Amino acid sequence: MRLLHTVPPPAENLRVVLVATRNPLNMGAAARAMSNFGFLHLRVVRPWEPAFREARSAVDAGQVLSAAEQYDSVAEAVADCSLVVGTTAVGPRELEHPVHSLPQAGGLIRTQLAGGRVALLFGSEKTGLSNVDLSHCHWLLRIPTRQEHRSMNLGQAVAVCLYELARDAGVTLVAGQPTDLAEAGQQERFTALLLEALAASGFTKPRTARATEEKVRRMVRRLALPADDVETWTGMLRKMLARMRAGEP
Amino acid sequence: MRLLHTVPPPAENLRVVLVATRNPLNMGAAARAMSNFGFLHLRVVRPWEPAFREARSAVDAGQVLSAAEQYDSVAEAVADCSLVVGTTAVGPRELEHPVHSLPQAGGLIRTQLAGGRVALLFGSEKTGLSNVDLSHCHWLLRIPTRQEHRSMNLGQAVAVCLYELARDAGVTLVAGQPTDLAEAGQQERFTALLLEALAASGFTKPRTARATEEKVRRMVRRLALPADDVETWTGMLRKMLARMRAGEP
Repeated sequence: MRLLHTVPPPAENLRVVLVATRNPLNMGAAARAMSNFGFLHLRVVRPWEPAFREARSAVDAGQVLSAAEQYDSVAEAVADCSLVVGTTAVGPRELEHPVHSLPQAGGLIRTQLAGGRVALLFGSEKTGLSNVDLSHCHWLLRIPTRQEHRSMNLGQAVAVCLYELARDAGVTLVAGQPTDLAEAGQQERFTALLLEALAASGFTKPRTARATEEKVRRMVRRLALPADDVETWTGMLRKMLARMRAGEP
Repeated sequence: MRLLHTVPPPAENLRVVLVATRNPLNMGAAARAMSNFGFLHLRVVRPWEPAFREARSAVDAGQVLSAAEQYDSVAEAVADCSLVVGTTAVGPRELEHPVHSLPQAGGLIRTQLAGGRVALLFGSEKTGLSNVDLSHCHWLLRIPTRQEHRSMNLGQAVAVCLYELARDAGVTLVAGQPTDLAEAGQQERFTALLLEALAASGFTKPRTARATEEKVRRMVRRLALPADDVETWTGMLRKMLARMRAGEP
């Protein structure tokens, strides 16, 4: 049975995360679109400092920019979010993540917003999100631009995504709670422990440790680790790691 | 893999009309969004001349700006269009025109585009469309921004409107399917190996082994293990188990 409620989109739960943004005008434009559509929580990761200062001091910077939180890494910026979505202009074939077109992605994000925080990541103007940034994402979102001119201006991309999220002013919820997923911080702690265990077991080769790390992080994100289970999984891993170390010469 | 079709929306029939635009960056941004979404016909009415020259000479101005047609009046710019829609940030009560919210307006415009040219008007950054400009419009379109901050940046407003027009138009790009999950047999092999590893690590207590087994099996099923990853997860676990056993007395 489907029970449909119509509630205002839980805009409170969205975190717009700008990663390594360089242009103050783009930061300002992103913040303005956020204010237009009622998503007020901005996080910036490693912004180009002069740009961030300039954007914050702009006349019309307003509430969103002055309340923006600054982080040194994507990991920290998404630590309290249970869904992390990256934006990309790249086609599906080049990527190892599932990619949803914005109209579909909007529905998935709205559903998740009803139950927990969602981070929506936008990369730098020139290079987009790096592979390391992407390894923190559960899946990617692509705005359906045409093949011949895929890459959007950052401020416009933010506006279009937030419009899509606000579009159906009422969110349609389907009965049967989606499982609460572990927060990104818990997932990352599990990942870190797993990497230690893989090193101790000899699975990780020193030469390819870096690639293994990204691969493992993506694999953990592809699991739907439930919030209720993550501590048990972590405890199991800790026990195995202790046993492996006990046996070391 | 699902088949991707790209049926172009009848984008050929849309005329984006910028009226009395003053900021070259906004003109450039509007043109870029048009190119992103495949609406290539720009008309400008009484632009501030230096701005128009600057926008046209910008490095990335591209096809849309260089092909833009210039007019002295809205009347001339919309003369060959069968539907003329104005954009406004103002609420309905102040206006004498019917106002449709963008999601509805998009459907009306798409229907009309199938049969004839449609002009979509955007006013100047400061004052929007004048009453005279509005008098050429059949109806108005409002982007559903929040009451407290209605007015959008021009380039972002163009991007959002064109996204809505392109949204359903068959520009559906779905990649990376909902993940294929591991088959039950693979999940069970992973579970069996995990139980061995938990026993070897000392996590499992003999007295409660039976209950642990059921609990672990349920936890593995809740993980939603992807088919593409299950062999790697199994390999990791096998390696850890071997290391734990190597250390046993």
